Amino acid sequence: MNVLLVYAHPEPRSLNGSLKDFSVRRLEDAGHVVQVSDLYAMNWKVSLDANDNLDRQPGARFDPSLDSKRAFKDGRQSQDIALEQEKLKWADAVILQFPLWWFSMPAILKGWVERVYAYGFAYGVGEHSDARWGDRYGEGTMAGKRAMLIVTTGGWESHYSPRGINGPIDDVLFPIQHGVLYYPGFDVLPPFVIHRTSRVDEARFSKVCDALGQRLDELWTTAPIPFRPQNAGAYDIPELTLRQDVVPDQVGFSAHIE
Amino acid sequence: MNVLLVYAHPEPRSLNGSLKDFSVRRLEDAGHVVQVSDLYAMNWKVSLDANDNLDRQPGARFDPSLDSKRAFKDGRQSQDIALEQEKLKWADAVILQFPLWWFSMPAILKGWVERVYAYGFAYGVGEHSDARWGDRYGEGTMAGKRAMLIVTTGGWESHYSPRGINGPIDDVLFPIQHGVLYYPGFDVLPPFVIHRTSRVDEARFSKVCDALGQRLDELWTTAPIPFRPQNAGAYDIPELTLRQDVVPDQVGFSAHIE
Repeated sequence: MNVLLVYAHPEPRSLNGSLKDFSVRRLEDAGHVVQVSDLYAMNWKVSLDANDNLDRQPGARFDPSLDSKRAFKDGRQSQDIALEQEKLKWADAVILQFPLWWFSMPAILKGWVERVYAYGFAYGVGEHSDARWGDRYGEGTMAGKRAMLIVTTGGWESHYSPRGINGPIDDVLFPIQHGVLYYPGFDVLPPFVIHRTSRVDEARFSKVCDALGQRLDELWTTAPIPFRPQNAGAYDIPELTLRQDVVPDQVGFSAHIE
Repeated sequence: MNVLLVYAHPEPRSLNGSLKDFSVRRLEDAGHVVQVSDLYAMNWKVSLDANDNLDRQPGARFDPSLDSKRAFKDGRQSQDIALEQEKLKWADAVILQFPLWWFSMPAILKGWVERVYAYGFAYGVGEHSDARWGDRYGEGTMAGKRAMLIVTTGGWESHYSPRGINGPIDDVLFPIQHGVLYYPGFDVLPPFVIHRTSRVDEARFSKVCDALGQRLDELWTTAPIPFRPQNAGAYDIPELTLRQDVVPDQVGFSAHIE
C-alpha cells in the first residue's frame, strides 16, 4: 500500500523526528511504499494567497475560494500545491504527524491544508440538491482512503481527559479529524497521542514505539471512528442538523459519531 | 482605551476587509486608540523555527519551548515577535478577526500565536506547586485585558448550531477562546460571528455593521464568557481535572464554563 506521511516539526533531532523515522521504517519493513512531506524541510509556503493561482491578474480582487476553484480546474495552481495533491491521490493512507501547539496543528501544517485542499479537490465537490449537500463528510475525493493523526502534547493525559481542563483530546482533535479528514472523505482512525513529551526517556520511548508500531501494523484493519455520513439520512438538508429522531437528546461533537 | 486588532485576510476588498475598516473607524470615533496588525499586509513570518532566537547556535538542536524561553528572557527574540508582544502589553482589548478556514484560524494567524506567545510571556508563567499550576487559564500576562473574536464562515448558522454537522460554533471556537485567549489571562467576550458570507448584499452588510458596532460600543461592559479559573478551586492539581463536586455529571468543553 502507499502511505503519505505529512510531518510538521522544525527539529529532526526531536521526539517527533524520531517517531517519524520509526514510522517510515516500520511501514517500509512491512512492504509499504512511503512518501514523507516534511513541511519544515521543504520550506513549505504557508500562507494561502493570490500567488497560488498562476493565472491571477495583477490588481484583480483575490477570492480565496473562487481563485482556488479556477486554478484547480484549469491546471494553473502553484506547482507545490499540485504536487501534494498528486501525493494524496497516490496514497492509500495518509498520516498527519505533529506536536499539538495551542490546541491545534502547527501553522505550517494548517497552511498545507488550506493550500492543498483546493476548491473542486477537497471541497466544492458534488451536487447540491434537496437530497445531497455536496460530496463531503464521508464522501469526496478521499473516499476509500484511510487517515490517522500522530500527535504529541506537552500536557498530561489527565489534562485532556473527559473532565480535564484542556478539553477531552477527542474534542480538541474533532475539528481536524472530522473537519479536515472526514470532510473530504477519509476514513479516520483513532489518533495515536503521546502526552507529557518532556518526560520521554529511553524506556518510555521504546514503549511508545511498540504501541505505535502496532497501530501502524493495523493501519488497514483498525476500525475507523464511526462519524455519521452527511448524505445517508441522519441530517436534514440543507440545514445539516441531525434529524429529530437521531439521538434526540444529544448535542455537540459527540453526536456526530454513531 | 487601547485596542489591538489582529487581522488575517489576504484581500482588503473583501467582506473581512470592509468589516476591519468599519471596526477601526467605530473604535476611533468612540475615542479609542487602535493599532492593526494586518498579518498579510505585514508579510508576517508564519513558521516558528530556530531563526526566532537571535542567539541560536548553528548546528544546535532546536527546542521550540526552551529556545523561546531563552530568547524571551535574554531579549534576543526576533524583532517582529518583540514588536507584537509590545502591542499586546499596550492593549486594553485585543480583537482577532479572521475567516474560519477548515474550522480554525488561518495559518498566518496561527503562526502569529505560535511565535508571539513566547515561553515566559504567554505560557510557562508563574509557579507550579500543589496549589497552583502556573499563571494560566484566568491568570497570566494578559490578566485584566479583554479579547474577542470576529469570525466569518461560509457555512450557514444552522450548520454550526448545537446539532449542526460542523459542530456548535462555541465548541469549534473553544480551542481558540479558551486555549489561546483565556489561557494567558484574557477575559474573553462572546464571539461576533457572521455566517454564510457568500450572501452578504448591501442591506445585510448594513445590518451586520449595526450589530458589530453595538458589540464594539459595549466592548468594556459586555460580560465575558465565565470560563472557570484554573487555580481557584474548581480543579484538582496537578491532574487539572474538575473536582468531583463540580458539575459531577458533565464532561467536555462546556463543563469548563460556570
